[in-house]
Formats: sequence, structure tokens, C-alpha cells
Amino acid sequence: MSFLKYNFQSDYCELAHPSVLEAFAAAQSTQFEGYGLDEFSARAATFVRELIKMPNADIHFIAGGTHANLVVISSVLRPHEAVIAPKTGHIFVHETGAIEATGHKICTANSKNGKLKPADVEAIITEHCDEHMVKPKLVYISLSTECGGIYSKSELTDLSVFCRKNGLYLYIDGARLGAAVNSPACDLTYGDIAALTDAFYIGGTKNGAMFGEAIVICNDKFKEDFRFLIKQRGAMLAKGAATGIQFEALFKNGLYDKLATHSVNMALKLADGIKNAGFDFLYPPETNLFVPVLPKKLVAQLRESYVFHDWEDMGDKMAVRLVTSWATPEHVVDQFIADLSIKE
Amino acid sequence: MSFLKYNFQSDYCELAHPSVLEAFAAAQSTQFEGYGLDEFSARAATFVRELIKMPNADIHFIAGGTHANLVVISSVLRPHEAVIAPKTGHIFVHETGAIEATGHKICTANSKNGKLKPADVEAIITEHCDEHMVKPKLVYISLSTECGGIYSKSELTDLSVFCRKNGLYLYIDGARLGAAVNSPACDLTYGDIAALTDAFYIGGTKNGAMFGEAIVICNDKFKEDFRFLIKQRGAMLAKGAATGIQFEALFKNGLYDKLATHSVNMALKLADGIKNAGFDFLYPPETNLFVPVLPKKLVAQLRESYVFHDWEDMGDKMAVRLVTSWATPEHVVDQFIADLSIKE
Amino acid sequence: MSFLKYNFQSDYCELAHPSVLEAFAAAQSTQFEGYGLDEFSARAATFVRELIKMPNADIHFIAGGTHANLVVISSVLRPHEAVIAPKTGHIFVHETGAIEATGHKICTANSKNGKLKPADVEAIITEHCDEHMVKPKLVYISLSTECGGIYSKSELTDLSVFCRKNGLYLYIDGARLGAAVNSPACDLTYGDIAALTDAFYIGGTKNGAMFGEAIVICNDKFKEDFRFLIKQRGAMLAKGAATGIQFEALFKNGLYDKLATHSVNMALKLADGIKNAGFDFLYPPETNLFVPVLPKKLVAQLRESYVFHDWEDMGDKMAVRLVTSWATPEHVVDQFIADLSIKE
Amino acid sequence: MSFLKYNFQSDYCELAHPSVLEAFAAAQSTQFEGYGLDEFSARAATFVRELIKMPNADIHFIAGGTHANLVVISSVLRPHEAVIAPKTGHIFVHETGAIEATGHKICTANSKNGKLKPADVEAIITEHCDEHMVKPKLVYISLSTECGGIYSKSELTDLSVFCRKNGLYLYIDGARLGAAVNSPACDLTYGDIAALTDAFYIGGTKNGAMFGEAIVICNDKFKEDFRFLIKQRGAMLAKGAATGIQFEALFKNGLYDKLATHSVNMALKLADGIKNAGFDFLYPPETNLFVPVLPKKLVAQLRESYVFHDWEDMGDKMAVRLVTSWATPEHVVDQFIADLSIKE
Repeated sequence: MSFLKYNFQSDYCELAHPSVLEAFAAAQSTQFEGYGLDEFSARAATFVRELIKMPNADIHFIAGGTHANLVVISSVLRPHEAVIAPKTGHIFVHETGAIEATGHKICTANSKNGKLKPADVEAIITEHCDEHMVKPKLVYISLSTECGGIYSKSELTDLSVFCRKNGLYLYIDGARLGAAVNSPACDLTYGDIAALTDAFYIGGTKNGAMFGEAIVICNDKFKEDFRFLIKQRGAMLAKGAATGIQFEALFKNGLYDKLATHSVNMALKLADGIKNAGFDFLYPPETNLFVPVLPKKLVAQLRESYVFHDWEDMGDKMAVRLVTSWATPEHVVDQFIADLSIKE
Repeated sequence: MSFLKYNFQSDYCELAHPSVLEAFAAAQSTQFEGYGLDEFSARAATFVRELIKMPNADIHFIAGGTHANLVVISSVLRPHEAVIAPKTGHIFVHETGAIEATGHKICTANSKNGKLKPADVEAIITEHCDEHMVKPKLVYISLSTECGGIYSKSELTDLSVFCRKNGLYLYIDGARLGAAVNSPACDLTYGDIAALTDAFYIGGTKNGAMFGEAIVICNDKFKEDFRFLIKQRGAMLAKGAATGIQFEALFKNGLYDKLATHSVNMALKLADGIKNAGFDFLYPPETNLFVPVLPKKLVAQLRESYVFHDWEDMGDKMAVRLVTSWATPEHVVDQFIADLSIKE
Repeated sequence: MSFLKYNFQSDYCELAHPSVLEAFAAAQSTQFEGYGLDEFSARAATFVRELIKMPNADIHFIAGGTHANLVVISSVLRPHEAVIAPKTGHIFVHETGAIEATGHKICTANSKNGKLKPADVEAIITEHCDEHMVKPKLVYISLSTECGGIYSKSELTDLSVFCRKNGLYLYIDGARLGAAVNSPACDLTYGDIAALTDAFYIGGTKNGAMFGEAIVICNDKFKEDFRFLIKQRGAMLAKGAATGIQFEALFKNGLYDKLATHSVNMALKLADGIKNAGFDFLYPPETNLFVPVLPKKLVAQLRESYVFHDWEDMGDKMAVRLVTSWATPEHVVDQFIADLSIKE
Repeated sequence: MSFLKYNFQSDYCELAHPSVLEAFAAAQSTQFEGYGLDEFSARAATFVRELIKMPNADIHFIAGGTHANLVVISSVLRPHEAVIAPKTGHIFVHETGAIEATGHKICTANSKNGKLKPADVEAIITEHCDEHMVKPKLVYISLSTECGGIYSKSELTDLSVFCRKNGLYLYIDGARLGAAVNSPACDLTYGDIAALTDAFYIGGTKNGAMFGEAIVICNDKFKEDFRFLIKQRGAMLAKGAATGIQFEALFKNGLYDKLATHSVNMALKLADGIKNAGFDFLYPPETNLFVPVLPKKLVAQLRESYVFHDWEDMGDKMAVRLVTSWATPEHVVDQFIADLSIKE
């Protein structure tokens, strides 16, 4: 890995795990069916179904997360139905109005650590009481959240029970699902997630793939004609095999979880170092994205060697976002920790 | 290349040219900026600008053709503005209403060989005379067409002049632009195409890339905020570098044209063999997709060894679609020709 | 009725039947609930339910026909689902892409007299065979058609049976439903129409109302949340009472049918006069809109006294569209007939 | 006016001013052009242009406010462009996602009394800094606001200057513009409003009309093809004359302002009585809608004779919304004031 300054901005800064490129090379000599109807995708789907312990789930591979979100959400809502999301939700903040462009409003709730509780959702559905307002129908959450928060099994169960009781769909944006599930703070399995939601996606782009997300459809109502929606939104790659090949490589020997575990371990080691150096965090570090609060002078000094995003200006301190990946070298983490003392 | 039956269904049945995979491998050790702001994409864009001889063109790489079409078209039309396309146009027939899903009607014209003439367009704009009808604003054509047709420089110039005179945009779906430009039947250069249109895309998926199309924006009016539209429609890959790497590999040493030339050569050799065997064509073979008309008995016999699409049932004969690719081995073409005699 | 030239362009050229204005005056002294939840609308809905002999139908009054079409159609289709309509269908030709603006493609069939037969529909659903194409889901027809055609009970039954067998919805644009049902050529009752369709609207604007169409929802699946859709598309008038008042006036004493009968009678008398004068028709005259074919010289002469639309240029003849209304005076019809001889 | 309980819920509870009905009666005997191209609408437009002192403004009459908002806003925004509105804005709260259904996000700002200041808008455009977020492009405000607030000339000028400096459009929802302009608290003229905005509408429905809003387009950029948009969204009534007739009646002799003045006077008299009875208001009463804060016991007692909406539960008190209209009888206001003492 060559770099002038190591980049902790995100987990999409490296191309792909070597096993993915090897799988491409191995597939090179084969002709395949187009549009995701190839054997690689079929095998990858089987691996996903085993992982989530839901043999009748529908699995679709598409290229990116914003696309996955808009295809799934717009496929199941009637025109007047709306999404409930936390204010920090990626679809509300950082997808250029992709959901609204499909015609649907997003109703937002304040949240702690980016997580929604049943009471947050209840407040919104109570407020939306008649036909002069949209009808909230689908709850969108991210796991891990955009703030690095993780739902416990009990929290996700509560939310799921509430949604089912109130006729709401529950959908998880799993761009960083691997790191979430493999965090020591997480007691959820992939199977739990499948059992508690109507649909979600398992992010490949941020965990070893060159691109690709595995959409998992658990609710039968979401399944009908889903490939029409994929095609209509421009999400059906002619060489869909290219995503199938990647997910087969990631899932066939547990590589996906190994990469996620490395990513989380690097983050927690880094967070530990930061804590030991006497600094605090905006939210408790739980996964491969976390937000330490550092003196601005130290931030400026670290920027000479590392790249990362500001999160929130707090006067003489700055909350910054650090993200590790499957590729983050441990020696870089060690060096970052060593660099935490302010030079005079 | 391993296969039981050789697949002539389309030019997207092989993963990617080896040079593309090598370029991935070479990029493996680098961290890069996200969302297409990386150096690979920047260099690839420079190669494209040189190819089209338009230094101020905007170049954007996205994953697939349907996506390119819907992003470009919906970015420039007001809600009441419509597209004019030939009846065989891919956006009208085979994109699951992707354009209509962005709110715009497609007005269709009958056409010969999939090509539009100024008179075809004129008939439509004359018919659309008041505010009770949509306002046609963008002319969509494919090059080569879905029937394997190629516009001559004179034809494209006429259409372009007509469009500009009538306040219409001209956009080319270039999924198979490489094969078109490298066909002996084509007197258009990439530069001509750029000079005569408002926007077009140069297809990578069907000419050596694993995925990816290079959108070329020639008209300044189309340029503003284009990245917002890419993002909103879910077309901005976090690892946009993955497309940049591929197009750099394809364009830096003329590989793109070499692959297209091979593809066309294989098709024309195959067409020649078919002609010599005494069979005719629905349209004159000009590029890597063509439509011979064969006795049904022969078609059935060929299907034992080859995979291809039916095009039109003509009683005791069948028009079938044959497509070659950058990867089509010449010996397969030779064998196909040898297999053209009906066994009793 | 004051006019320089009598206008046969359409049946929306007079404000409203006097009974409608009287009903407004009578309602003047009452406060009412907003948004269609008033007692006038409730009573009018009851009259409509009696008329159609469907006690559990949902009735919604909205201001105009294009609006009715787009609200109903967009309320029941998923994004990839499409409409089947005859090529002459109002939604395809004269509503400025209103349906496409809600995201849905219209697949068209050639038709005779503007009518669709099961075979026309079948051809379209057979052609749309996979996820690369839209999925036709709702059949739109007009009664009477834009060419003045009327479905017989047997024809509508065949179409309805075909639709139900194939999972297609059947919707009727009834802008001129009153004139159709009251035509001697029509053996359909309002009850038949309700029984054979999923939804339709009974046009008020073109039959005595100042504005307003009564949407009738027969299929339970269409009923849920329909008022949300009305509101979202801007179709819920604050003073919904204004439509309820009109439809109560039109339906409480059979006024609606009386007006339609007059309109049809005037048309058929006029058509008879034209026939007796030796002229032919593009389609057999059946309702209040018909299309005689007249020598251009006569057309020019008639234009000195009457206003009407050209329909189709046929060389030395012109097919013209004549439309009568509830307000057409018989003496004008007589005069028109008297004016049919070409002056030298 | 007959009623059991007088209704202060809104200003759309009475059908229409007698002059409007008289104008309908007078127009009864005339044939007119369809789709708003009639002479009534032309004359009414001239009256509006005079009122706003902008001879080249485009005037379009449509049936309702939600419809006016969605037609105007969707006509000028590109897909990624968004609306800025106060959190209390009607389009955000009470139009069932009508704007989002046309594809556009609404970015909201907290506001006092429902009004936006340049700083509120600035905060939003500063936050929306790149292509991962929508691009705010049109500022939506209401005059009077949904809380009964009125912009001063200085406030509206500041906002307008800020918008123009920052490339933002300024649009006013004028459902209650008459009452606003005729409030003693308002120093804005119709001409000021036209000069300071890109477009707005003058509400008829809530000030004497049976239905109808006059859209005023000041900015040339908004004018092109506007009738296409009206038609496409279902807002073009076949008998557009019905709105023209009403607006001619309202504007030709200053009736519109007289009605609004009465409405405001009744509100301010009522508010004065409430104040004198010792009660306070959530916002200073300025126009025909205001929000007194009353003891719940008194609210319950008043509900025996009057109908009105709750606004906010404040523990032992309730903020309630009272709205007067052009038709509110002064003796009802007097009686309401007399009823303000709590009976033991």
C-alpha cells in the first residue's frame, strides 16, 4: 500500500481484496449469462442465504449503496407513502435527494448515535394522522449507523416488533453491516437481522469488494417483480457476473467476516490508543467508524500525516471521523497512536 | 475460453480484457479519492478528451448504459419535455420504462435499420403543436443501432443540423460505439460525433471493460451540476476509480479501437461466410451485430453448438441476431461457417 | 345563448346547466366541512352509488378529467407497471404526458374507432415478456371513445373477462360517459360498467356541470388511502362541496341523463341531416361526437357560421369533428343542416 | 348564514360571495373558448396585472393552492434542486408530500411565526455544500404564514435581495394573501410583492371565490411553456372560464380587498376581545388567522357553540386556531367575545 498520507476518510479508499481480483482472473476464461443470471451470482446468492439462515430469501447484487436504497424503497411504497429515518440517515443527508426523486418524502426523527427507538417512530406515525400528510410506511435505519452506532439484538427486536405491529416495513442500510456484525459490541447475527427486517443489504463496497451490495429480501411482498425495478432504475449490470464473482469470493470461505473483523480491530485499537492518550469520543467507539474529540492543535498536527474528515467544530476542540478498513495496516494504527502527543 | 456452446447472444458474455484486470492489479496498492475524483478517472477523462478532440468536454464514468441514458436524459429535460426515439430504440424497448420513470414520454418514429432521419423527427415535432401534448426536446439515437445500423457522417450531420435548427438536443447511446466507429461502413470519427451531438456515451461494457460507460458532455448547458444528477440516480460509485482504471487501460494505447476492430472483423467474416452459403440478411451487415435470415431447420441445427437470439419469425425462415465481441475466437467463426450446411 | 358563430368544437363551451347554478345559490347560506367531507358530497355519492347499483363503491369528486386519470392510474401501479391504451386514447395523445409524469409508460395498440379488443391487449402482454420491458397492468379505455365509438355490453364484457383472467385492471375514462350510456347505440347501463371495471369516472364537465368528475372505485384494492392520492396530486379542493353540490343537482332527479340524451339527440339529428345531404362519416355516428367527411369547399363555407375542429385531411375532403352538448339548441342544428348545400 | 355551531376552523367554509354567483349567472348565456383561453380569464388577468403593477407578468388561474404550489415549483427545478421552506410551511406539513411526489426535497428551517429570515436560508445553503446533497434553489414562504405571521416590506426585501444574490428563486404561497395585504400590520402592496418575488399566487378560495388561485409569474424564466405544466399536472380546467369569471368579479371593483378587509377586521376585533378578557396569544394577532391561548375549561365551553382547531396542548391551557372569513358576521364575533367568561 503506497501513500503519502494515510487516508482514514473512509473504507472505500482501496480497490479490492486480492482474493476478489483472483476470482476475476479465474472467471476470465468463461462465457456467462447476462444481467445477473449467471452461475457466479447464483452460487453467491446461495452463500448469502446460508449466512442469513433464510433459505427462501431473495438475493440481488447491485453496484452501490445509494442505488440499493432507492431501488428497494421505491419498489414497495405507494406514491403517498413515506420513509421514517433518523436525521443522520444516509438517505436523508448524503444521497442528493435520491429517495425524494422517486417521489417519496422522508420524515426524520432526532436520534442518539444515529439509532431509532420505537418511541421515535411512534411520535412520527402519531403526528401523521390524516390524508393531508404523507403516510409513513417504511422505517430506514443503518447498521452500523452513520455515527458508528450499533443496535443490540434487544433494540432491533423492539423496533421490529413495533414496526410489524404498526404495519411498517423495516429496512436496513447495511453499507457497513460486516463491521457492525463483527464488532464485539454487537450481539446480532446475520440471521437475526434477516428475521427482524423486511429487507436489508450487505455492503460489499466497504468490505473488500471493488463494488457491490447484496440486497436481501426477506418479506415475500417485496419479492414480486423486483428484477423489473432493478432494471428500471439502471441497476442491472449487463455483466452482473462481476458482482456475483466478488460476493462468491467474499462469502465462500468466511473472508467477508475476516475482513470486517480486521477493520473493527484496527478501529478499536486506534480508539483505545486515543482514549489512553486522554481524549474522549462523541459516541462510544463500537465499530470501524468512530468520532474522537481532539484538540484542534493536535488535529492540525495529525493532518500532516493522515487524511480524515471533520465531524463537528466544538470550539477549541474538533470531533473528527476516523474510519478503518479491511486494508488498514496495523503499523499505521500504531504510528497514529504514537503521533497523539502535541509537539510544542 | 471454455464453453459447451459458443455464445453469440451478445458482446457482454466475457468478463473483461486481460489488460483491464492487469490495471486493477496494478492499482491494488494505492489509496484513492472516492466518488470518481481519483487520478485514474482524471487520466482516463484526459484520454477521452483527446480521442474526441474536444478539450473542454466533460467526461463522467458510470457503470451501465441504461443508467447513463436515464441520468443524462432526465438531467436536461423539463417535466413536459419528451424524447424522440426510433421505435427500435433501446430506451423505448428494453429499459423497463426507465425514461418514463423519470417522468418523460418517449415519442417514437418508425425507422429503417433503427436510424432516424430529419424527416422522421420533423413529423413528430409538427404533430406536437400545443400544450395538450408533450414538447419533444431531445432526439435519442443509437450508434450502432439496435439493428446493427450505422449513420454515415452525412446522415448524422443532417440530423444534427436539423436538431440545432429546431432547438432539439441530440444524444447518442453509444453502447456499441466502438464497433460502429471501427466498422469499414463508418466514416465518422469520435471527433465528428462529439462535434455533432450534445452528449453521448462511449460504451465500455460491450468492448473490453468489466463494466463502465464514458459519458461525454459536449453542450455546456448539460454540464452544470451533472455530478448531482449522477449521485441522485445512484450512479456515483464510491470506488469510481474502478471505472477510471478500466477506461485508462482501454484508451491509453488505443486498446479500445483494437478490440472493437477485432469484434467487427469477426462479425463481417461471419456474415461473409453466411452470404457465401447463400443466405440473406434483414439489414446489410455493418458492425458486430447483424441479422441473417436462415432456414429454421438450419437454425435448429446451429443451436446444438451455438447460443443466439431469435429476431423475427418469418414463416419457414427465422431472422436471428448474431453478435461478436472483442473476445470472439476466429476459429469459432470458421467453425460456424463450416456448420452452415443443413444435415439431412 | 349568445354567439356570433355557433361552437361545435366541444361539449365544454357553456358554463353550467341552470340547475347547477341554482344549487349553488341554495347552498350559499350554509357553512360546510372542507375537503369533500361535506353533506352535499355525501348525498351526491349516495346518488351515484344508486345509479351504478353498487352500494359499496367509493365515490370521489374531483375537478377535471386529466386529473382524474392521473390520480387513479398512478395510485394503483407499481413503478414498473404500465398502462395499455388505444393509440387514440386521451391520456396518450392530449394530456401532455400526465401519466408518464407520474412515472408510467403507456403501451399503445392500434384500434378501430378508438376501441380495444381482447386481442389488442393480448398482443401487448405477449410482447412484454421479461424484466427488460415494463409490465402492462392497467387497461385504459374511453367511453365513448375519442372517435365517438361505443362499446357494446358484449364487447366490454369480453374485455373485462380477458383483463381479470390476465391480472389486468380495467379503467374507463368517462369524460363523455353520459352521452355514451344514453346513446341508442349503447346497451350498457351504469351498473354494467361498474360491474365490469375496477374504476371509472362519470364526467360532469362535459354534461352540465361547471366542472367536476365523479370517480367511481369498484375494486376494493383501489380504495385504500385514495384520499391521500387525491390530496397529493393537488386534486382535493378546499371547497369540495362545490363539486358535491353540482353532482347532487345532476343526479338527484335524473337531470344528468336528460342532458346527455338531449346532447346525443342533437348529434344524431345533425348526423342524419348530413347523411341525407349525401355525405359520409369516418366512423358510424353513435354519440354526441362524430366525424363527417365533407368537401373542403363546404367546410370553408360552414366555417363562416360555425366553429369546429378539423380531424383529418383527406385530399379534397376534410373529416371534421362535430360535438353537441346539453345546451345545443335544436334550431342551430336545423340551421346547420340547412346550410349543407354548397353555394356557388 | 345558517349554522348550529359557528365554524371558525377555516376561511373555506362558505361557498362563494354572492357577486361570484351573479357573475356565473351572467356568463351563463355565452359560449366560450376552453382551457382558460376565454375572454373572462383574459380580462381577469388584466385586472391582476393592474393590481400588481406589472404589465408583463403572466397570469394563470387554477383551481387550488396545493396544485398551484406543485405546478409552479416543479416547473422550474431541475431534478436535484430543492426547496427551502419554514418547518411550518404548508407544502412541508399539509400537502401529503405533493412536492416530493414531483421529485424534489424540501429543506426546512426553524422559524419564528412561520417566517424565514435571510440567515435561516443562509444556514441551509451553507450546509448543502456538495453533490452528495441536494442543491437548494427555491425559497418557499407563505404570506400570511400558517401561524398568521406577516412579513414587513423590509423583511421581504431583505429576503428577496438575499435570494437574488445567491441565485435562489423566491416564491410566495398566497392562499391568504388578501388578508395579509389588507392587514393593518402589513406595509406591503401587491406591487411590492410582485417586484420582490419570482412567482406567487393570489388566493381566491379563501377570499370570496368558490375555488381558484391566480398564479402570478414575474420572472421571465418561469414563463416559458407554463401552460404545458398546468396541463400535465391536471390543473387545466376545460372550463377555465369558471375561474376567470370569478377573478373578474373579485378584482374588477376592488371586491377582493373589501372582503379581505372585512375578514381581518373581524379577526382583530375578536382578538381584541380575547385580549381584553385577559388572555394571551402564541403569536401577535395580525391577520384573519390567530392563535389565542385559553384555559382548557373555557375551550370546552366555547366548543358548545363554536367549531375551531386545537393548535398546541400547553398543559392546563390550549392554544387554539381561530380563522375568520369574508363571510364572518360581526354579531357572531360579538357573541364569541361575550362567551369568554368561564361559567362555574
